[in-house]
Amino acid sequence: MNTIEIIQTKRDGGTLSAAQIGWVIAEYTADRLPDYQMSALLMAIFKEGLDGEELAAWTDAMLLSGDTLDFPGVAAPKVDKHSTGGVGDKVSIPLGPMAAACGVAVPMMSGRALGHTGGTLDKLETIPGFRTALDPPEFRSILSRTGLVLAGQSETLAPADRRLYALRDATGTVESIPLIASSIMSKKLAEGLDALVLDVKVGRGAFIKDPAQSRVLAETMVAIGRCHGTAVRAVLTDMSQPLGRAVGNACEVAEGIEVLRGEGPADLVEVTYRLGEEMLLLGGLTTDRAEARARLEQAVASGDAFAKLVEVVEAQGGDPAVIHDPALLPRAPGEHVVTASRGGYLARADALDIGVAGVRLGAGRERKEDAIDPGVGITVLAKVGDPVEAGQPLARLAWADPDRLAAALPLVERAFTVGEEPVAPPPLVHGEVA
Amino acid sequence: MNTIEIIQTKRDGGTLSAAQIGWVIAEYTADRLPDYQMSALLMAIFKEGLDGEELAAWTDAMLLSGDTLDFPGVAAPKVDKHSTGGVGDKVSIPLGPMAAACGVAVPMMSGRALGHTGGTLDKLETIPGFRTALDPPEFRSILSRTGLVLAGQSETLAPADRRLYALRDATGTVESIPLIASSIMSKKLAEGLDALVLDVKVGRGAFIKDPAQSRVLAETMVAIGRCHGTAVRAVLTDMSQPLGRAVGNACEVAEGIEVLRGEGPADLVEVTYRLGEEMLLLGGLTTDRAEARARLEQAVASGDAFAKLVEVVEAQGGDPAVIHDPALLPRAPGEHVVTASRGGYLARADALDIGVAGVRLGAGRERKEDAIDPGVGITVLAKVGDPVEAGQPLARLAWADPDRLAAALPLVERAFTVGEEPVAPPPLVHGEVA
Repeated sequence: MNTIEIIQTKRDGGTLSAAQIGWVIAEYTADRLPDYQMSALLMAIFKEGLDGEELAAWTDAMLLSGDTLDFPGVAAPKVDKHSTGGVGDKVSIPLGPMAAACGVAVPMMSGRALGHTGGTLDKLETIPGFRTALDPPEFRSILSRTGLVLAGQSETLAPADRRLYALRDATGTVESIPLIASSIMSKKLAEGLDALVLDVKVGRGAFIKDPAQSRVLAETMVAIGRCHGTAVRAVLTDMSQPLGRAVGNACEVAEGIEVLRGEGPADLVEVTYRLGEEMLLLGGLTTDRAEARARLEQAVASGDAFAKLVEVVEAQGGDPAVIHDPALLPRAPGEHVVTASRGGYLARADALDIGVAGVRLGAGRERKEDAIDPGVGITVLAKVGDPVEAGQPLARLAWADPDRLAAALPLVERAFTVGEEPVAPPPLVHGEVA
Repeated sequence: MNTIEIIQTKRDGGTLSAAQIGWVIAEYTADRLPDYQMSALLMAIFKEGLDGEELAAWTDAMLLSGDTLDFPGVAAPKVDKHSTGGVGDKVSIPLGPMAAACGVAVPMMSGRALGHTGGTLDKLETIPGFRTALDPPEFRSILSRTGLVLAGQSETLAPADRRLYALRDATGTVESIPLIASSIMSKKLAEGLDALVLDVKVGRGAFIKDPAQSRVLAETMVAIGRCHGTAVRAVLTDMSQPLGRAVGNACEVAEGIEVLRGEGPADLVEVTYRLGEEMLLLGGLTTDRAEARARLEQAVASGDAFAKLVEVVEAQGGDPAVIHDPALLPRAPGEHVVTASRGGYLARADALDIGVAGVRLGAGRERKEDAIDPGVGITVLAKVGDPVEAGQPLARLAWADPDRLAAALPLVERAFTVGEEPVAPPPLVHGEVA
């Protein structure tokens, strides 16, 4: 094998063999292939892409770079949900317990806040005592006892992806559909799942701004799953405005709990149920979508899903009192309300602006080493299409530091547009890829 | 300045500012920008190119990474010739003395054998005692005394280019016209020249195999010179078959001396005179091509050009006896003749095959650290278009090691094609870019 020939082949638009791809990733992981050669190859891939077979090989090679999980003691179908990242996207918090209460085993591995999007781990860690760093034996043990575990990605899964991601981040090669798709899928396929439901975000608040490209990403990930023999389905959901009302950390946990109590904003509830249906269908618990929906509704109505969250919080060392009374969760002392300057219809509540405003308030990280403030956040009080009156509150900011409030406020103010004409709300689901 | 933004701009087909380019090269030279970011940028440039202003800025930045020469004591116009590299290309050896004898100051900096092409330094070093590694004071002193110096590239000129070239070599980013052009031009413009004549090779034995791309390279280098305010002219010369008869090191010195004695093969003589005319015209010694030619012919006929070579060889520590009697130059003991298997017309004498055969014999280097054998070589005894008889010698190999002869021989044999039909010899000059 010759690294330079491999780079030249991809550079000139050729196709790499599975053997070449496996060799390159293995050599890189073993520190025998230098960063400068890998970054040249990544840029060539950025420009020339990877075809289906190359992608499957690239993903498999990253998967093989580390451990893969298995759960011999778990008989139930193991199904996870992965979101490409959004603003106000707290779906995992109610969805995991709902699916688990219906009999799916959910070994959920989540990430941290990245850029303008939130991270489920940061949200869960606002629950006092809750531990997200679990070693494989503990992860296995909690999953087999409760049918649900809500943890961070193990360092030993797909380590090649971690190194490649850091290199891409430093070399302008992040926004490549095949590299994004293989990065996500290598980590998810290492979890030993029977099936995976993908929530691919579409719109201004998504990482990929172009809706057509979001669909390509969904298709690419589903194809990788097919090559690997794992059932994968992707739902394209709206991220033009934040999902639900709460954008932050503790406030998003509280809103997630609302869903488990049969409350919560309609859009969040609907997306959670839709993804839950896919998990039950793909996990083989039923072949009938209406029945899947009914089971999920029953899990909420009976309190089983809520009890499942309490159970997993206790299993992971968290204080279940905050689940019973979310008012105990941290909340920043300051409050600032942004109002509509005119009456009409809400035409825009920009998810990207609101997401960046959340980061500026302290809900996310500007640099990797930054700490997040669990109690700050933004509550979005109107949805696109809603009629609004002049002076009506559009958003409420919970803030702790006046400088951070001053930095966030202009973004929240510019995020909203009120127009004269009625506006149709955007569809919640833009499509599905199976 | 942000490295990742610079990479992304070029990656997406945008244009970099002179400030961005200057910053990137300066940071890289100062070891503050890692190889892996530079290699990603190089691959983006490979795919997206550099426009005229970017190229000028890139070249200037490399130029500014090190010293530039000046020759305050030299009143004559300083003109160098640079060849993109060929097989049997010993033009520099007679051309430098001829131009110097006509009143041009020739601060010639040459390179070593690279791939299948020979290097003037390796050839000159077959002259016993001849030193090509000169420090700037000695380089200046010899130039002001003799009007000619034949040396290696100083390490202090364009050091960024040296590092970038090594990185390109390891990352599949060598064959990029803008990167090749800026690499050559940054080194040449650092020599403090008034004018530069480029000999851009065209055909199988050239580094760039596609004749259209050779012209683009010539145009690109001339444009860089124009931006820099240095007069540059490029002559596109044939490299489909070796230039002259000798391919090797000592044997090429001997053939160069023949030209200075008014002998030598017609193609070599013609290319040498043509490039000499350009040097005299561009240096402003005359505006009339016929007069330039006459002066060069007179310099040869009078013996002045020959005397100039003797003078510079003595100045650089070499033994002038071998210039007077080239039979004293090293010559390998073995001789093997390749003959025509049929009669007809010589249709092909492949410069690439013969060049690689020369490397295999020991005249070049397969790895950087290899030593060359000064006495081995190939003498090509027929030119494309010549009538040949069955059994007529086509090439004579001077060899030292039977294993090396065995490795070289098949390439020499396959390099020649004899056809039934008459063949027109290729043009010596394919064009000019001014």
